[in-house]
Amino acid sequence: MQALVLEKTKSLVLRDFPVEESLGTHDVRVRIHTVGVCGSDVHYYQHGQIGPFVVRAPMILGHEAAGVVTEVGQAVTQLKVGDRVCMEPGIPDPTSRSTREGSYNLDPAVRFWATPPVHGCLRPSVVHAAAFTFRLPDTVSFAEGAMVEPLAVGMHAAHKARLRPGDFAVVLGAGPIGMVTALAALAGGCAHVVITDVQAAKLDLAAQLGPITPVNVREQNLAEQVRRMTEGWGADVVFDAVGLPQSIAQAIEVLAPGGTLVLIGMPGAPVPFDVVAAQVKEIRLETIFRYAHVFPRALALMGSQRIDVRPLITDTYSFADSIAAFDYATRMKPTSVKVQITLD
Amino acid sequence: MQALVLEKTKSLVLRDFPVEESLGTHDVRVRIHTVGVCGSDVHYYQHGQIGPFVVRAPMILGHEAAGVVTEVGQAVTQLKVGDRVCMEPGIPDPTSRSTREGSYNLDPAVRFWATPPVHGCLRPSVVHAAAFTFRLPDTVSFAEGAMVEPLAVGMHAAHKARLRPGDFAVVLGAGPIGMVTALAALAGGCAHVVITDVQAAKLDLAAQLGPITPVNVREQNLAEQVRRMTEGWGADVVFDAVGLPQSIAQAIEVLAPGGTLVLIGMPGAPVPFDVVAAQVKEIRLETIFRYAHVFPRALALMGSQRIDVRPLITDTYSFADSIAAFDYATRMKPTSVKVQITLD
Amino acid sequence: MQALVLEKTKSLVLRDFPVEESLGTHDVRVRIHTVGVCGSDVHYYQHGQIGPFVVRAPMILGHEAAGVVTEVGQAVTQLKVGDRVCMEPGIPDPTSRSTREGSYNLDPAVRFWATPPVHGCLRPSVVHAAAFTFRLPDTVSFAEGAMVEPLAVGMHAAHKARLRPGDFAVVLGAGPIGMVTALAALAGGCAHVVITDVQAAKLDLAAQLGPITPVNVREQNLAEQVRRMTEGWGADVVFDAVGLPQSIAQAIEVLAPGGTLVLIGMPGAPVPFDVVAAQVKEIRLETIFRYAHVFPRALALMGSQRIDVRPLITDTYSFADSIAAFDYATRMKPTSVKVQITLD
Amino acid sequence: MQALVLEKTKSLVLRDFPVEESLGTHDVRVRIHTVGVCGSDVHYYQHGQIGPFVVRAPMILGHEAAGVVTEVGQAVTQLKVGDRVCMEPGIPDPTSRSTREGSYNLDPAVRFWATPPVHGCLRPSVVHAAAFTFRLPDTVSFAEGAMVEPLAVGMHAAHKARLRPGDFAVVLGAGPIGMVTALAALAGGCAHVVITDVQAAKLDLAAQLGPITPVNVREQNLAEQVRRMTEGWGADVVFDAVGLPQSIAQAIEVLAPGGTLVLIGMPGAPVPFDVVAAQVKEIRLETIFRYAHVFPRALALMGSQRIDVRPLITDTYSFADSIAAFDYATRMKPTSVKVQITLD
Repeated sequence: MQALVLEKTKSLVLRDFPVEESLGTHDVRVRIHTVGVCGSDVHYYQHGQIGPFVVRAPMILGHEAAGVVTEVGQAVTQLKVGDRVCMEPGIPDPTSRSTREGSYNLDPAVRFWATPPVHGCLRPSVVHAAAFTFRLPDTVSFAEGAMVEPLAVGMHAAHKARLRPGDFAVVLGAGPIGMVTALAALAGGCAHVVITDVQAAKLDLAAQLGPITPVNVREQNLAEQVRRMTEGWGADVVFDAVGLPQSIAQAIEVLAPGGTLVLIGMPGAPVPFDVVAAQVKEIRLETIFRYAHVFPRALALMGSQRIDVRPLITDTYSFADSIAAFDYATRMKPTSVKVQITLD
Repeated sequence: MQALVLEKTKSLVLRDFPVEESLGTHDVRVRIHTVGVCGSDVHYYQHGQIGPFVVRAPMILGHEAAGVVTEVGQAVTQLKVGDRVCMEPGIPDPTSRSTREGSYNLDPAVRFWATPPVHGCLRPSVVHAAAFTFRLPDTVSFAEGAMVEPLAVGMHAAHKARLRPGDFAVVLGAGPIGMVTALAALAGGCAHVVITDVQAAKLDLAAQLGPITPVNVREQNLAEQVRRMTEGWGADVVFDAVGLPQSIAQAIEVLAPGGTLVLIGMPGAPVPFDVVAAQVKEIRLETIFRYAHVFPRALALMGSQRIDVRPLITDTYSFADSIAAFDYATRMKPTSVKVQITLD
Repeated sequence: MQALVLEKTKSLVLRDFPVEESLGTHDVRVRIHTVGVCGSDVHYYQHGQIGPFVVRAPMILGHEAAGVVTEVGQAVTQLKVGDRVCMEPGIPDPTSRSTREGSYNLDPAVRFWATPPVHGCLRPSVVHAAAFTFRLPDTVSFAEGAMVEPLAVGMHAAHKARLRPGDFAVVLGAGPIGMVTALAALAGGCAHVVITDVQAAKLDLAAQLGPITPVNVREQNLAEQVRRMTEGWGADVVFDAVGLPQSIAQAIEVLAPGGTLVLIGMPGAPVPFDVVAAQVKEIRLETIFRYAHVFPRALALMGSQRIDVRPLITDTYSFADSIAAFDYATRMKPTSVKVQITLD
Repeated sequence: MQALVLEKTKSLVLRDFPVEESLGTHDVRVRIHTVGVCGSDVHYYQHGQIGPFVVRAPMILGHEAAGVVTEVGQAVTQLKVGDRVCMEPGIPDPTSRSTREGSYNLDPAVRFWATPPVHGCLRPSVVHAAAFTFRLPDTVSFAEGAMVEPLAVGMHAAHKARLRPGDFAVVLGAGPIGMVTALAALAGGCAHVVITDVQAAKLDLAAQLGPITPVNVREQNLAEQVRRMTEGWGADVVFDAVGLPQSIAQAIEVLAPGGTLVLIGMPGAPVPFDVVAAQVKEIRLETIFRYAHVFPRALALMGSQRIDVRPLITDTYSFADSIAAFDYATRMKPTSVKVQITLD
């Protein structure tokens, strides 16, 4: 069985790599069809680690996957062989306190695909917990199914924001996560979204996804634009998908009194935070870590065309060209958003 | 100045009817362009009263209005002459406790158009508090502007439901309020809506408004349909826009564990409520009374095409034909949803 | 091993009754010290069933228990032999959707002590899931530990009410659940509680538990009393621990605009519900079913003396006198609240 | 009429200072009895400004006041001459958007006692809006009434934390605001509070106020202490009443997964914020600015002895000795918490 293996930093090989996986009673076996390339995959490829997670042994990459069920465990009732599915890449410890309270994403014992030492899904087949495997609606393709994982981050952010129908939102950053967050914010009740970036190509694409106003913060004054669009009141919600000191300062500046800032981007170091500026507006800050209980909701919104991620899938490679896919992903053109690999 | 005057039960006259209104410093004067006919207008026309509110003197009808600002009070800064606007028909006492706490709809001293003894807006011009007068986005017509009042009821219901992105909702009743509630539920985050009625024509129209599945409860089994669409789990939210004993029982039956029932319809008498059936699912029930702080949000969603109410405006009459409009509204064809009167 | 066995309706025997229980890796074995007698135990004793749950074979009664850990499973880290503990009587299916979402009390597959066909805890020893076994603070006695189960119902009600510090609450009904709800409401932020009943003895006891004003609804006008104490505004929260048509009507009458009604009592049949009366105040209704994630919180509040349940433990019997305890519980004096049985 | 006038920085004079105040229809006149000295009063005295608020003309100090109603406006119904009252020091613009939405504390046009150029209340009599004047329960003294203003800050923080009954809280800082926050947290549902400071005398006093565990962060390891008290889980809520970089870092360190940080202290400059450390726990941060709708709730809790602020009133001066009071407040002994001035 061939797999895309990160041997060590900057060394990626497509080779035979057997993974022993027995099918438990609550598991399914899934033939992988499509896998998206995530920034974290690329980061492990380039740097061999993310924070405390260090690649110390060859590891299969990939955690954004869709495929077809080929075998089901004895206790599995909600899925059957032939079902088209996508998978949540993290499996928590069911007995941990966070899991039992419903926040399994906060369980430190979670086993997450392509986070050392856990193998990812860039291989023909995986065994996965049925409870974290979700049937695709008929109208949702494998490629879209493999987009649920990044979309789930935006969906979780939109949920945490506790949007009120008709909200005005700003999304800072028009990378893949910024874009899915804009889609999730609109699907979750926002009337308008302003999205920012410094790359014109990204903003052009974002502007086609719905009532989304692009602001190139290199050329335009974001605060002025938000004031104009909100009669001086400010944004109800800001999603920061940048994670830089200036983005957090901008967020606080453009928020309305009582507004909410959702921190999605992960700064590399502590950032300066103007507490008093936040206090005079009584801003609430929500931080998010991955997602929980979001996959079926994302699929429902995709299935009913409330969210369309297809414009974000810009580049597709065959499994045989996986390494080329990763190399492209390390230096994508600004018009590219999501690179996917097809194993079919 | 001509106005549509309800002289007494079943006696409607279009006649000169001067209303003395001085323009306060925080007021605007608005030339009325379009007024929608609401079920409550029709009810006063037919029965002369609604609950404790009795028509004891000639009263102008109408409370769903859009028009053009013709004069502004000295302290008004957010509106100017020529602005196209719609108006919230109820003006609360700013010093009441409910108003100060932000729930002005619960202020018993509210003065509400066409609720005796307060005159409505089926007349060429009104003076109104600027704080309850809202500018229409350029893309929103007067006819749509006059739909904001009923839409606001659905928006308030969607807000109270505390929707989570991707929710599955059921709207019981495909009358005007049921339809705007379905639109608000989708705009507010729902992935799918099932709507029920016993009139096929209403359901046919509703089915064209978005990912809305019609269920004719005279012919189909709602509970079975919901189970099928939710893999047996049930609806996250039910909006009852019927207000009958059987609709409330249905709501509890089809709700998922932890689900929410929003009671919009107003039953004529106490209804049987199976508390234990609600308890085993820990259902939350929200009741709503009109709306608060919703008009700008409804306009924002209409302005960005997230909500389109135009298919609901089925019948338009000139002001001169107002009585015919009301007579039609008392016995509408099932394909009709909203009757409007144009004063231009 | 002797146990208190309900052979069939009205037939209670203290006799040898072996229960096969192997200790799983995540289980503990607990020597039972104190067991409270609950209304449901008494109901099974008298009627042999509660709703769909019918006693078809001899069943051990009791589900409010405290004791001492005598053995721990291999994977148990948070408890050790000798720990004084109390137990949550219901063990959910960890793979059910409700459990995974954090609402294990709504899992229909829950196995609950002394709910047919599951045996209760009126026996010397039980095996129990460690995750549902909680260490008692040093200052909390076994008798108090056995009160955590009923207190948990009041705690869950107080949690669902989303109390705001300084709320004014009314508790309808001064039975055991009404009393623990009053304690939980005060501990959870209420400034004052009004409690109602028709038994003077119950009200006299309740009045000694904190800033609790008793109202004998047979003699006093509750609505007038609440108006007087709230300057006409009404109660922020009403907890209905009665479950009768008149209690629900009273609740709606005395609630303030925007208030919350928590339905704890379980009416034997659907009750009339005046929806419009609730709507004009935009009342929110919460229903509760048992509790979830509450035991450690109840213990923390008892451990810090924020809640003192000792005045509610009015009658204590030895295990040998269990049948007498049950017979007393079927026709308690009004000054009695909770009967407990000590196995030590 | 004598008043305590801040002529300019460091120049405080007790002298005749007439303030023209006509009694509006919704106003009351209040004879001042007790005024507390706040850190902000002392700061204006010492530095002549706080942020953008600069003392440019002689200004009367004081904003924590209780007194007796001596005259009522024509439209005032809820208060009468002779009522013992305390006053909320900020009067918002009733037409501002924040005020109308219920968050009057965020109205930038608020007029707040002793914030330039608005005079404070260290004078025999004031005219005040009745809606912001609150009757003291019979059991609450003038001295306690004058404590409601600082207590309101803690109450607002406890409200924003959305406490759940049985929460474990940490309050960083045992100054006056830290202490009232600890009281509010306990009254609002917490089972235990850990309070920190570097002054042993403050901690000794705090430890006597309830189930409050003092931690001297100069000598003890806070994180270790919290871990020990929560079986390694962490604090549900941290209130930062310090406002220093290290306090915010400590807060994030000791919080449990899903915990809440309420930022009360106002750092003098932006502080470093470790976003990723907050994200892995999905910490929510709430910021607060003064308070809204809290005074009656604070009085209710004081009236029912759920909150007792008397131990915090450590030093009382006569009006004639006002300047001495302020001089003492600038260099209080560590055993002092609140200095008050009596005008009677």
